[in-house]
Amino acid sequence: MSTCDAGCGKHDHRSADPVAVEMLAIADREQYDNQWSRYEKQQPQCSYGQLGTCCKICSMGPCRIDPFGEGPTQGVCGATADTIVARNLARMAAAGSSSHSDHGRKAALLLKAVATGANTNYQLTDTDKLVAVATRIGIPTEGRGFPEIANDLADAAINCFGKQDDEPIIFLKKFMPKKRYQHLKNLEKTLLESTGSVIGLLPRGIDREAVDILHRTHFGCDADPLSLIAQSIRCSLADGWGGSMIATSVQDILLGTPTIKTIKANLGVLEIDSVNVVIHGHEPILSAKIVEMAQKPEIHQAAVVAGATRVNIVGLCCTGNEVLLRQGVGMAGNEAHSELAIMTGAVDAMVVDVQCIYPALADLASCFHTRFITTSDQAKIPGAVHIQFHEDQADAISLKILNEAIAAFPRRNKNRINIPEHTATAMVGFTVEEILKALGGTPKSLIDLILNGTIKGVAGIVGCNNVKVQQDLFHRQLTAELIKRDILVIGTGCWAIGAAKAGLMDLSAQELAGDGLKAVCKQLGIPPVLHMGSCVDCSRMLVLAGAIADHLDLDISQLPLVGSAPEWTTEKAVAIGSYFVGSGIPVHLWPLPPILGSPAVTSILTEGAKDLLGGYFFVEEDPLVAADKMEAIIMERRAALSI
Amino acid sequence: MSTCDAGCGKHDHRSADPVAVEMLAIADREQYDNQWSRYEKQQPQCSYGQLGTCCKICSMGPCRIDPFGEGPTQGVCGATADTIVARNLARMAAAGSSSHSDHGRKAALLLKAVATGANTNYQLTDTDKLVAVATRIGIPTEGRGFPEIANDLADAAINCFGKQDDEPIIFLKKFMPKKRYQHLKNLEKTLLESTGSVIGLLPRGIDREAVDILHRTHFGCDADPLSLIAQSIRCSLADGWGGSMIATSVQDILLGTPTIKTIKANLGVLEIDSVNVVIHGHEPILSAKIVEMAQKPEIHQAAVVAGATRVNIVGLCCTGNEVLLRQGVGMAGNEAHSELAIMTGAVDAMVVDVQCIYPALADLASCFHTRFITTSDQAKIPGAVHIQFHEDQADAISLKILNEAIAAFPRRNKNRINIPEHTATAMVGFTVEEILKALGGTPKSLIDLILNGTIKGVAGIVGCNNVKVQQDLFHRQLTAELIKRDILVIGTGCWAIGAAKAGLMDLSAQELAGDGLKAVCKQLGIPPVLHMGSCVDCSRMLVLAGAIADHLDLDISQLPLVGSAPEWTTEKAVAIGSYFVGSGIPVHLWPLPPILGSPAVTSILTEGAKDLLGGYFFVEEDPLVAADKMEAIIMERRAALSI
Repeated sequence: MSTCDAGCGKHDHRSADPVAVEMLAIADREQYDNQWSRYEKQQPQCSYGQLGTCCKICSMGPCRIDPFGEGPTQGVCGATADTIVARNLARMAAAGSSSHSDHGRKAALLLKAVATGANTNYQLTDTDKLVAVATRIGIPTEGRGFPEIANDLADAAINCFGKQDDEPIIFLKKFMPKKRYQHLKNLEKTLLESTGSVIGLLPRGIDREAVDILHRTHFGCDADPLSLIAQSIRCSLADGWGGSMIATSVQDILLGTPTIKTIKANLGVLEIDSVNVVIHGHEPILSAKIVEMAQKPEIHQAAVVAGATRVNIVGLCCTGNEVLLRQGVGMAGNEAHSELAIMTGAVDAMVVDVQCIYPALADLASCFHTRFITTSDQAKIPGAVHIQFHEDQADAISLKILNEAIAAFPRRNKNRINIPEHTATAMVGFTVEEILKALGGTPKSLIDLILNGTIKGVAGIVGCNNVKVQQDLFHRQLTAELIKRDILVIGTGCWAIGAAKAGLMDLSAQELAGDGLKAVCKQLGIPPVLHMGSCVDCSRMLVLAGAIADHLDLDISQLPLVGSAPEWTTEKAVAIGSYFVGSGIPVHLWPLPPILGSPAVTSILTEGAKDLLGGYFFVEEDPLVAADKMEAIIMERRAALSI
Repeated sequence: MSTCDAGCGKHDHRSADPVAVEMLAIADREQYDNQWSRYEKQQPQCSYGQLGTCCKICSMGPCRIDPFGEGPTQGVCGATADTIVARNLARMAAAGSSSHSDHGRKAALLLKAVATGANTNYQLTDTDKLVAVATRIGIPTEGRGFPEIANDLADAAINCFGKQDDEPIIFLKKFMPKKRYQHLKNLEKTLLESTGSVIGLLPRGIDREAVDILHRTHFGCDADPLSLIAQSIRCSLADGWGGSMIATSVQDILLGTPTIKTIKANLGVLEIDSVNVVIHGHEPILSAKIVEMAQKPEIHQAAVVAGATRVNIVGLCCTGNEVLLRQGVGMAGNEAHSELAIMTGAVDAMVVDVQCIYPALADLASCFHTRFITTSDQAKIPGAVHIQFHEDQADAISLKILNEAIAAFPRRNKNRINIPEHTATAMVGFTVEEILKALGGTPKSLIDLILNGTIKGVAGIVGCNNVKVQQDLFHRQLTAELIKRDILVIGTGCWAIGAAKAGLMDLSAQELAGDGLKAVCKQLGIPPVLHMGSCVDCSRMLVLAGAIADHLDLDISQLPLVGSAPEWTTEKAVAIGSYFVGSGIPVHLWPLPPILGSPAVTSILTEGAKDLLGGYFFVEEDPLVAADKMEAIIMERRAALSI
């Protein structure tokens, strides 16, 4: 019903990925419930919610403001559309930041356990990164053992989550380029003078800033859009330069910093004769261990006894990105592929940790032999098999999970197996370390290429899939259009998977790039679209932007950089967008965020922020027009730098 | 339009308080916008929101589940009504807990500043309480100076907010009665065994538990109602036995533990010839200082010069309760009186801090000469005068605020002044310390009275005002009915103000009590309804319950105690109700919480919780039936104890 009007079978309003289209034909035929069918049933969706003007914060409500109509202009307490929209947005930023940061907390606590020897299931794998991060944070490293350094680093990281004084958190202080830090510090002062009110932008503690938002958005507290948005930025900065930065740094130390490698992407990574285990969610701590344990001879042997050729671990969503980049594991797809993967009938187990896991997967898996295994106490799903993960028993639990998958293999219904053949090849693993290595050790050659115009600028993209947008279409069109204009594209998350599936991370994509970018990519032997990791790894983009800024002694807001979150879905995306904006980077968004019910909030986010922060949001539905606008921003910044 | 059908002018569907009725007649005549008129304009309110089945957590939504109809049973991601309702409720508990706890944090940080000498605007006022709390927490006090003890206590309190290990927070560990603590510890073990999942109940860190909720309610995380509700209880316990306990304890140390005193309550505390300053919100740190500074000769002199007799500080809402109990300041009213107070035309300044402050007050104040002054960066309100409060400049800022009020006095429009004459007398200040002192130093005589049936049990009530309920009607009727049945009523917040205004805290109310309770009250010279403080002081009720439990070596869940939150409005009430339930106390609620869209959540909160925690929720619309149910709970518990 949602397929191409011409009935060609190759096009579908629901996805731009032919593999998804193939699977959706099966879903339609077999009437498998899925996100698109559920979305149809949800129509029409509430317009108050979409505009952001529905308030459920107290039990005198819910209250609603119709910004276009004749209805009331205030809720029962007197909250206007401006207040309601700003409060709702602030809570989204708080929830998104908290999700990333809670992830970072677990990594930091594990680092502590490894450093003290309390956990022997993990090791200090990348000691170069350990020393580099510790040095950056100001921890002495000379003549000290790695566990000792790691212990201090873990303490410094843990302190960022819980500290209660007013100093900015150390990770932000040491990672943020100095001109940006100074800009935010000055801005706090200016805002105090101009508004008479304390308006903080530099985060004091990662958890505290989220709790602050919960408090100030409580009934009868902050009603001022500027103040609420400023706190959203502050909380999000605590995510980007704090929680997410810690997550990425510590995961690199414990599991290894990703290196450039070539992998396969799309559902074709599933193998008909293998025990297929899909790992899905966001955290690599368990999944990296599952990949490692799958190499054990006894696991291989068990798979063979069960009638399979081998155990085939594949990734999905950001857990997939983590093991893709570090361990070269094949990528089954992005968020919207999670249900499609199960519909292949060839997934013996889907193992999930946290975030972006549709609860619908449990029901769908029960239509197949698939074991749907939840592992986190923060993401239990009714109908799933729950195998509780404990970091100090990681090896044993991973083996248990793998054995569940192997036991499921013989129960496959062979008549229902449909694995689409297609995969794309992608060169991935472009961490800052790898990018700088490719460039000769410093950002200088990249900067030179930007200064001389060979590359116009850099676009950082992160994104989800969103049922309101044809899956991957925005990712594909926007990305292709940017590289064509000699804009280097870097990014993470489900966008990166979309780009990989589209072949945009293959070396052949060099041919799609403009002449300048193409020549650079050919010379370096890299694609024009660089996969930097999972969504928590947007911190890597901050580090890269910071390195360029510090090298040029400029603020990030002066650099020809621009961001985009096309097909965004989650509150994490709100946090990422907000810390990009707070870091001085303009950010494109589509679909519309729930802010249009307030002209004041819309104006602060799109115009006010530009004046105050350099970064700001803009929305655009058309990928090509979005590319125009992103290029215009880059050119405007180039002009301001006289380059 | 909402007045009595008989047109008598004394009854009004909107309020049971004749003073409010008097003011509402003026509001109707003058067409002053108010919560009731805004509520009417909001009709009909969204039924999805009221049932809890509206999900706005990701941008694929909003999604809605109609639990009665033919509509979809799942959101786009597959979230069911159970998941959606539980997630929404968990976020309410997180926001409520965070509000109380952020208040407690400020108090703890101020204690640190006072202890170290960094702040000289405040002192260690109640050193007995300092030593008592420090001793309870396990801090050595023998032979040590008060600042040294206070410094250690501040550190211990601050640590509860930010600590990152898995141990329960020290305030909960040391204040919770031992059988309850052990029960929760055992329950965690039982739940791990029965569900296979880690389900924590003892809070690890105050901020962390709120952040945990934000994470687990993020798109694609926890979908299990039991797991979500358990975390709501845990987060709320971190409020009751943590954040709120710290707020109360530290405020008593810094500002003095309240003692029994007699005050006046209702709008009649405003004085026609005085500069009237209404202090409104929740925190006593600033307001206590305003009361203190108002005594300065130069302030009195300035008031006289402006043509007034004196400066008259009166309280409203919980800031009002704080200065009522400690400084004997008159009480203008509860939450729903905030607009009515301004309508008297005799309020020269309304000074607010945080929580439960209608943003509508700014507009209303602008119709009068009233200076509406916000003071917290967490509660800025467009249209208000903002005078930023800094604890280390408390004296100077309080003087500035008072001078603003004095400057407004001559600008009064004398033709628009309408101060209702009525006030009620109330004996207030029944902290645990005062109750025990009245009883001879230990809870033994209270326990004896309960054991021998003179008093059947104790009901703890907290509440707001809620436009959906006739103001104060539930408070008055339920309270009167309980004391008639020999149930001692204690409580806090806007309920306590409602009870005070109704004369239920006057000694004459002894006559309304049953024979047993009446005799006790007469003997002790106290009313049958005890005001224990602001809503953050619900912690005092926990301490009292704990003292009884420990004295009898029983769990709180065995005691003939029951709670109620009639006319509840805020997310803080959800947190309070949840920590009462988690502490083993059944809690009545009205109006309906947004949970009825999920039979599973409703069943867990009303029945499952009873089995697991002893405490549970129940709803009841009729105050007399609510009293029946509360008495039945007390009698059931008495029977189980064979008393």
